[in-house]
Amino acid sequence: MKGFHPRHFRLVGKKIEATLCSLLPNENDSPRVLHQAMRYAVLSGGKRIRPILTLGACQAVSGKQADAMFAACALEMIHSYSLVHDDLPCMDNDMIRRGKPSCHAKFGEVTALLAGDALLTKAFNVLSHKGGSKHLQAIQWISEAIGNKGMVGGQALDIQFQGKKLDLPILRQINANKSGALIAVCTRVGAYLGCGTKHQVSSLHRYGKYVGLLFQIVDDIMDGQGYARALGIQKAREEATLILAKAKRELLPFGTRGHFLKDIADFIATRKY
Amino acid sequence: MKGFHPRHFRLVGKKIEATLCSLLPNENDSPRVLHQAMRYAVLSGGKRIRPILTLGACQAVSGKQADAMFAACALEMIHSYSLVHDDLPCMDNDMIRRGKPSCHAKFGEVTALLAGDALLTKAFNVLSHKGGSKHLQAIQWISEAIGNKGMVGGQALDIQFQGKKLDLPILRQINANKSGALIAVCTRVGAYLGCGTKHQVSSLHRYGKYVGLLFQIVDDIMDGQGYARALGIQKAREEATLILAKAKRELLPFGTRGHFLKDIADFIATRKY
Repeated sequence: MKGFHPRHFRLVGKKIEATLCSLLPNENDSPRVLHQAMRYAVLSGGKRIRPILTLGACQAVSGKQADAMFAACALEMIHSYSLVHDDLPCMDNDMIRRGKPSCHAKFGEVTALLAGDALLTKAFNVLSHKGGSKHLQAIQWISEAIGNKGMVGGQALDIQFQGKKLDLPILRQINANKSGALIAVCTRVGAYLGCGTKHQVSSLHRYGKYVGLLFQIVDDIMDGQGYARALGIQKAREEATLILAKAKRELLPFGTRGHFLKDIADFIATRKY
Repeated sequence: MKGFHPRHFRLVGKKIEATLCSLLPNENDSPRVLHQAMRYAVLSGGKRIRPILTLGACQAVSGKQADAMFAACALEMIHSYSLVHDDLPCMDNDMIRRGKPSCHAKFGEVTALLAGDALLTKAFNVLSHKGGSKHLQAIQWISEAIGNKGMVGGQALDIQFQGKKLDLPILRQINANKSGALIAVCTRVGAYLGCGTKHQVSSLHRYGKYVGLLFQIVDDIMDGQGYARALGIQKAREEATLILAKAKRELLPFGTRGHFLKDIADFIATRKY
């Protein structure tokens, strides 16, 4: 392994795409509109950062890709469900997602609501299909990360503070829950399912937390919101550099096996979209 | 055990209430409004039919109540989430639920949407907290029963056929998915977690399917919809009597241990609310 290689990246991406495609319900099966909406929400592009991080962490601990592939896809389904519900009229009312009509813009509000519910449910179904207690632990961590004290809680907190001036501690808490917890649990679960030691799982979980934070800061710098507003662009850039270094430091014990995750962190730090 | 006893019924109900109360997030914990909405949705009354069926099936196979209590509560959380999302403006737009303001009427649409998402997630979290492969199997069955080919699928199908005349096979399919699958998985999971044999689990799963169907027919007779409309009141009553007999027949091998489930079936057949 010589670290990041665009071809390796593309190969992993193709496998994720193919597995998602086979795990999602067939659009010719009843109820068709629901199934079309579920597939549309998941298969309409997206960078697949979360499954790639899951598989990257699995690889860092010398695990087999197959051990974490279902979890990787389940985590992408969860990400997709959260976008579908976030875009709904009562939430952000976004009509465009990834350059295309959002799920409710295309299928209507009711179908989008149900497609989100069905994707979240499907994710847990996929996680339950691999036997053994490891997947039960993964379900526990994931359900914590995306529930009332994680992703959904962060969303609720964000709405509670809408229109109010956010100080940095509140902003950090909202982001750590709303987007950070799901990203962090990807590397935690990937390392765990790849049979990493307790110590390795903790390191990669911390790496995931840094990467989640980095992702948000870069987002905020691009659209001038959140951190960019609270800290100023210059300070936000410095913060991003610092967080990137912290993320990479967690990878040191993994040697060349951690290069893939290092390159993902660099990609997230420098992405322009 | 001498079958149904109102005091026993009340005792089980109290334990379910207390366990739900302790499993749900504290309302003084942040994000408070979300937690208030989650508790409101679950703890505002309800007959607790689903957890009672779960514990009844566990008891029928001589299982310990504690083995199925978490699953019983998770299944009630799932039922509550489905009601919260069903009541939303884009769905049935119901402002009243159990004689009180529905969740979105009280907390607003966004909080209700998120509370539903959080309750579904919490249910899987609760199911993951008991170790062992039995709970992984329970998660698989439950996620099948409430997903795109189960409860959510039934909801989608119902909407697809809205305003169209329903023939009996379609009506049966909608009901089997929309409300029947969740009720049936309660007895399946209760019997399984109570360490019933494969044969016992199958019998009690079939019992659950009949009871779910019975529940719907009685509902329809009360409000003149669905089966009552498709079959006529008289025929629907005859169908209910037949289904009740089929449900009870599944209980014969369980002897006195099955009396509690027999009495629940009678209660469902004769309920007036």
